Amino acid sequence: MRQEKRTPKAKDGKGTSVAERHTVLTGEELTALDAHWRAANYLAVGQIYLMDNALLTEPLRPEHIKPRLLGHWGTSPGLNLVHTHLNRLIRNRDQSMLCVWGPGHGGPAVLANSWLEGTYTETYPDVTRDAAGMNRLFRQFSFPGGVPSHVAPETPGSIHEGGELGYSLAHAYGAALDNPDLLVACVIGDGEAETGPLAGSWHANKFLDPVHDGAVLPILHLNGYKIANPTVLARIPDDELDALLRGYGHEPLYVAGSDPSEVHRALAAALDRAADRITAIQRNARDSRDGSARDGAAYERAAWPMIVLRTPKGWTGPADVDGLPVEGTWRSHQVPLPAVRENPAHLAQLEAWLRSYRPDELFDRDGRPSDQVLTCVPAGTRRLGGTPHANGGLLVRDLPVPPLDDFAVQVDKPGVALHEPTRVLGGLLARIMADTADRRDFRVVGPDETASNRLEALFEATGKAWQAGILPTDEHLARDGRVMEVLSEHLCQGWLEGYLLTGRHGLFSCYEAFVHIVDSMVNQHIKWLKTSRELAWRRPVASLNYLLTSHVWRQDHNGFSHQDPGFVDHVLNKSPDVVRVYLPPDANTLLSVADHVLRSRDYVNVVVAGKQPGFDWLTMDEARAHCARGAGLWKWAGTEDGTREPDAVLACAGDVPTLEIIAAAGLLRRHLPELAIRVVNVVDMTRLMPREEHPHGMTDAEYDDLFTTDKPVIFAYHGYPWLIHRLAYRRTGDANLHVRGYKEMGTTTTPFDMVVRNDLDRYRLVMDVIDRVPGLGVRAADVRQVMEDTRTRHHSWIREHGVDLPEVSDWSWEG
Amino acid sequence: MRQEKRTPKAKDGKGTSVAERHTVLTGEELTALDAHWRAANYLAVGQIYLMDNALLTEPLRPEHIKPRLLGHWGTSPGLNLVHTHLNRLIRNRDQSMLCVWGPGHGGPAVLANSWLEGTYTETYPDVTRDAAGMNRLFRQFSFPGGVPSHVAPETPGSIHEGGELGYSLAHAYGAALDNPDLLVACVIGDGEAETGPLAGSWHANKFLDPVHDGAVLPILHLNGYKIANPTVLARIPDDELDALLRGYGHEPLYVAGSDPSEVHRALAAALDRAADRITAIQRNARDSRDGSARDGAAYERAAWPMIVLRTPKGWTGPADVDGLPVEGTWRSHQVPLPAVRENPAHLAQLEAWLRSYRPDELFDRDGRPSDQVLTCVPAGTRRLGGTPHANGGLLVRDLPVPPLDDFAVQVDKPGVALHEPTRVLGGLLARIMADTADRRDFRVVGPDETASNRLEALFEATGKAWQAGILPTDEHLARDGRVMEVLSEHLCQGWLEGYLLTGRHGLFSCYEAFVHIVDSMVNQHIKWLKTSRELAWRRPVASLNYLLTSHVWRQDHNGFSHQDPGFVDHVLNKSPDVVRVYLPPDANTLLSVADHVLRSRDYVNVVVAGKQPGFDWLTMDEARAHCARGAGLWKWAGTEDGTREPDAVLACAGDVPTLEIIAAAGLLRRHLPELAIRVVNVVDMTRLMPREEHPHGMTDAEYDDLFTTDKPVIFAYHGYPWLIHRLAYRRTGDANLHVRGYKEMGTTTTPFDMVVRNDLDRYRLVMDVIDRVPGLGVRAADVRQVMEDTRTRHHSWIREHGVDLPEVSDWSWEG
Repeated sequence: MRQEKRTPKAKDGKGTSVAERHTVLTGEELTALDAHWRAANYLAVGQIYLMDNALLTEPLRPEHIKPRLLGHWGTSPGLNLVHTHLNRLIRNRDQSMLCVWGPGHGGPAVLANSWLEGTYTETYPDVTRDAAGMNRLFRQFSFPGGVPSHVAPETPGSIHEGGELGYSLAHAYGAALDNPDLLVACVIGDGEAETGPLAGSWHANKFLDPVHDGAVLPILHLNGYKIANPTVLARIPDDELDALLRGYGHEPLYVAGSDPSEVHRALAAALDRAADRITAIQRNARDSRDGSARDGAAYERAAWPMIVLRTPKGWTGPADVDGLPVEGTWRSHQVPLPAVRENPAHLAQLEAWLRSYRPDELFDRDGRPSDQVLTCVPAGTRRLGGTPHANGGLLVRDLPVPPLDDFAVQVDKPGVALHEPTRVLGGLLARIMADTADRRDFRVVGPDETASNRLEALFEATGKAWQAGILPTDEHLARDGRVMEVLSEHLCQGWLEGYLLTGRHGLFSCYEAFVHIVDSMVNQHIKWLKTSRELAWRRPVASLNYLLTSHVWRQDHNGFSHQDPGFVDHVLNKSPDVVRVYLPPDANTLLSVADHVLRSRDYVNVVVAGKQPGFDWLTMDEARAHCARGAGLWKWAGTEDGTREPDAVLACAGDVPTLEIIAAAGLLRRHLPELAIRVVNVVDMTRLMPREEHPHGMTDAEYDDLFTTDKPVIFAYHGYPWLIHRLAYRRTGDANLHVRGYKEMGTTTTPFDMVVRNDLDRYRLVMDVIDRVPGLGVRAADVRQVMEDTRTRHHSWIREHGVDLPEVSDWSWEG
Repeated sequence: MRQEKRTPKAKDGKGTSVAERHTVLTGEELTALDAHWRAANYLAVGQIYLMDNALLTEPLRPEHIKPRLLGHWGTSPGLNLVHTHLNRLIRNRDQSMLCVWGPGHGGPAVLANSWLEGTYTETYPDVTRDAAGMNRLFRQFSFPGGVPSHVAPETPGSIHEGGELGYSLAHAYGAALDNPDLLVACVIGDGEAETGPLAGSWHANKFLDPVHDGAVLPILHLNGYKIANPTVLARIPDDELDALLRGYGHEPLYVAGSDPSEVHRALAAALDRAADRITAIQRNARDSRDGSARDGAAYERAAWPMIVLRTPKGWTGPADVDGLPVEGTWRSHQVPLPAVRENPAHLAQLEAWLRSYRPDELFDRDGRPSDQVLTCVPAGTRRLGGTPHANGGLLVRDLPVPPLDDFAVQVDKPGVALHEPTRVLGGLLARIMADTADRRDFRVVGPDETASNRLEALFEATGKAWQAGILPTDEHLARDGRVMEVLSEHLCQGWLEGYLLTGRHGLFSCYEAFVHIVDSMVNQHIKWLKTSRELAWRRPVASLNYLLTSHVWRQDHNGFSHQDPGFVDHVLNKSPDVVRVYLPPDANTLLSVADHVLRSRDYVNVVVAGKQPGFDWLTMDEARAHCARGAGLWKWAGTEDGTREPDAVLACAGDVPTLEIIAAAGLLRRHLPELAIRVVNVVDMTRLMPREEHPHGMTDAEYDDLFTTDKPVIFAYHGYPWLIHRLAYRRTGDANLHVRGYKEMGTTTTPFDMVVRNDLDRYRLVMDVIDRVPGLGVRAADVRQVMEDTRTRHHSWIREHGVDLPEVSDWSWEG
């Protein structure tokens, strides 16, 4: 079907010969492409405006028009054009392709194309590919009980919500990783291109391995306007734009115009050229890389092609409305004709607009798309709405998580030996990395902190992905590495989201304070998962797992800017179906939690754990049992004798609070042995919530049994103390709950001073018990004074010596 | 002092003649610059390692070494080099300059320079510029009770915390705006350059007006490494980097090397050339712009110069340690010699390193810097540590906030007339914008949403800043505009922070859901303000004011991705000294809140307000009184007769919850007139907190008086309901509090369906009252059934009609 003039073999910039093809569309092909485009445009306009008379079988009347006009027209003709031409490319080359629609607020366009290719009807059988189905397609759009106006989980073929902007290119790269046969097209709006995350994502091509990964084809759509403004990239000089894109490491191919035939011809040619170039780059890399997978600088990074598509915003829509220009301006962003129901002139203009696409040529009398319209549409799973890569749960395989006992630390007695929990975890992760060397479906991402977070065992199993220059002094860099390090939390998050949603597994290791950088991204991912879980056709994908370490209590040296435990609060505002939060207090509990989250599906798991040497409390078996319960009594740490209720409960969540609580219990055992103290540790934060609010929540009976209904509970919590009150506010014993945690008393100081400043230290906790248990005598007051004095001594000691009190740094459990 | 060879006048790219000067340093000048650099390097190393023997008057012994070695050496020699040469530039040209230190974890460098130039001693008189002071400077660094290891509020001359990376360039542009004589140098580390926000900030030059704004001089420091990895920009080919920077709109000037003399010569020349070029660009623009301030495309945007500085990481530090290369690799990132106290070889290596700077040449016997070292140091407020621009409170002037009555809406009766609150606010902002036309110290920033958020009255007073191409069809674009719109929340936030910290005023208008994009930035700004407030020498600056609109309840059309009210929770975790949250329920209360926040200092004020037409409840006088109280009883809306305690309290915060509460009160009045219902509205969320936790918090007596101690309180809240429990958990009536709010039940639907889905609607609120007031009879049960039936009717109605029930959309108050 495609005619090609083959030019003599040309040399590309890297010295490899590629066949340059000058695509010339036949008249038929052009007509068919244009028919498909017109059909998609018709369907997009219909979705925005119509609730009846979809085929315009009768003159348009106000009652056919939706009472609220919602949706985004401006970007839709461009998206329709791209989709039409990607269809052609896929069909001509039998190409496996996924498309990420950055301007996803152009939902009508993507829905229109899905309906045309048939995947919409296969996904939602009630929206048939005929007149009745077209009516339903139109009516449901942005209508109560219907579908969102943006590309969303409900949209077949999508892994990318079109609401919040900035993440399309990162998602595209995430999808392409370890999918060597996949071509991921990514439409980037010139509005989105202004965001920081998108601007930073261009450099993702320095991390994409042409041998083991697929390709990303960015299509920068310069329609010139955002909501109410021109865009930066559309208004800088051509040579500046060209330099920028080449500086990003791309070879830009330009397509511009407003004459449909010319643009069709140019876009088809550009896409063919881009696809040829991608094939050549991949072939070159795959042929030239020798047997060793870590051959370093064996080949040069090529300039990947990209397309710059410059077409009018709202193209083919009303040129002017009420005397003001609309097509080709920001005024076409949403609904170009706003008053169609009330204003007969607008109604007439809408009808003329719809009829300008000549629907009678595009759809038969039953509303089915004509053969001509469907000429270029691919079949089966090659359709963009039908690719299994966009429904990763179809592809995901269980991760081979090895037996934990291979990595567990031996614990003969609690609170004596020290381990760095994340380093222990590193061994487990390294094994998984090694065991997936062939499958290549597991990655660890992080902002340059894998070693700092003590996971460097990973580098025994794989390298750090790197396609830029490599020097002899470098360590662990590898073209095919599956640890991804870049100093951009946004890129890490975007890569991992794209990787997971296409059916793979991963972990994001991050400094606790700086994971707030992706607060908004995780919001959107949680929303995506919540909605996906309600769609039977979307199969469960691997959970998004955060390992937050370098946490608030051990950022004493980096200071106030690095001290923020609030991410847990942030995610716990979101859907309880999706969110899980774990605070394992030692190495073995971290292993057990990791085992659980790496096997789980459709969650966002937040794991906060220490990287500094910390005491081992539980054997592996105890850790497993404790993590399975999520919260439980640590009998050995307390002084209950079982004959009566405890006098006070010391509860803790997080590694440092656990240490302080156990040390406080030890002080009480020594100084006030007659007190019956219960120690409770919480690993799974959602256990504290009422059962009605979270599936992991304890029943009131369970809660009361653990925490009592009337005894003082001193709760030492890793983060902001208010969270515990929030989680527990409906419990009977709520009024007896006294929480210590981080209250923004941060600075550059010693580790123990961090807990002292925030009143979370063992001495303060002992004072809290003494202050709250009724009926204690003079001796308790003396003990209290000793605690107070120790705190005072601490303050002067650290200022003199710069390190913590010996009795704190030398402490170990003597129970 | 400077020798120049003047070449014949050359033409620059834009056709303007500039004098090209080939700087040639004299031997003396070179020697002096190098001495200053060595002195700064010496002082940086000393801070990291020494707690005594600062001048090395005796051989180095373990007890001179700090017990914990903390700090970042790697970037420090580069920062010292830049500071040394900026000193020269300032002094030679009497240039007003501010420097933003992106690699601010190199705190030792900036502190060293401040001490050398004398500003440190002027700010902290106990750290004298002599041997004793040097000892103190060293000891206090990253030491308990001392100073942070990063550039921080404590650092003279800084407006930029060096902890979290990504914001340096945005801060620099914010500082330069409306400071036409100021040159803002901005050192950008190649690590930071990988972040999204930084990558997006390069385009800020399309918003900088060469006439009314100062200049930004980016200095991209390619030392090649992050914590443990090479950096992207240091490892791409030179031509790719050059294209990238030109694509960003810059003219890059390259300085590279590891021979100090050569680098000194090249850097001095490049800085001179950059300064000349900046002067020429400004002169050209300022001369050619005609009288009309909005002359559009009257001049072409010039390529601003920038410097690319490629020097080794950890330059002049140990070349190798324990047989591994350190200088010029990532291993020099923090503390190159880690075991100095324990390992005599390391100790010897440290001593040799320190002595390599020849401290006896640099400091006299009393530890004072030699005259040679100080040759290039400027004087007074020209010193980088002494510029008032870095202590904006010295410069800030009160904003001329006009009388609110000029903008107030007339309210004859509550709940009848409708206004769009943000549109009303727009009038006030426009007046302020007009009244600061000469002062130019007020800006409004936002991601392309000023008009969408209905603040377009602003465009009567100013335009939107825009230095890229302008077309005849464009509206409101202006070279000198003071509304800043770019589709990057990061850039908006960064600009505003830089603008405020240099002594000006502003407002950030943002979609509520997407302000989470800057969660982490606001964390850092709050931390900055908290610390600044504890430093007497830092004078209070204007507050950072957020106007969050397009909020969760009116994003029914944009769907789930646009529905997130969690920013309030996020900021309320932070320091109560700094954070204020306001939810004005109508137009006049919004005016009153705006008046307050625009006059305030050193806060982060979050104002959540509606842009859709909403009922006016209060006259301007009532609004003023209500906002002054922050929370109060709305007697007219309830049914208390004053003879007894109410049967229930209906409380509300936020515009939509207020509407639903008042409608619920109306339903109760009609259906159950015998009930005594109290209506309470909360504007200032922190009023709910205990007085001990927040300065705005109510005392228990005040709280109990308003909410009662034992009556059911049905609280309809704008955001996540748990927040109210968290804020009120210590109150006596806490157990009777029942909160409704957003619980992530979002989708694309109608406005009223949003409240129904989240159980915040008037019918549910009436049911809540009936369920909680004891002793109600059969009639109440009937009323409850009517409410239930209406909710059922609502569900089918919206699915059929696509709009809300007429009784909801036509509602007005009938009290």
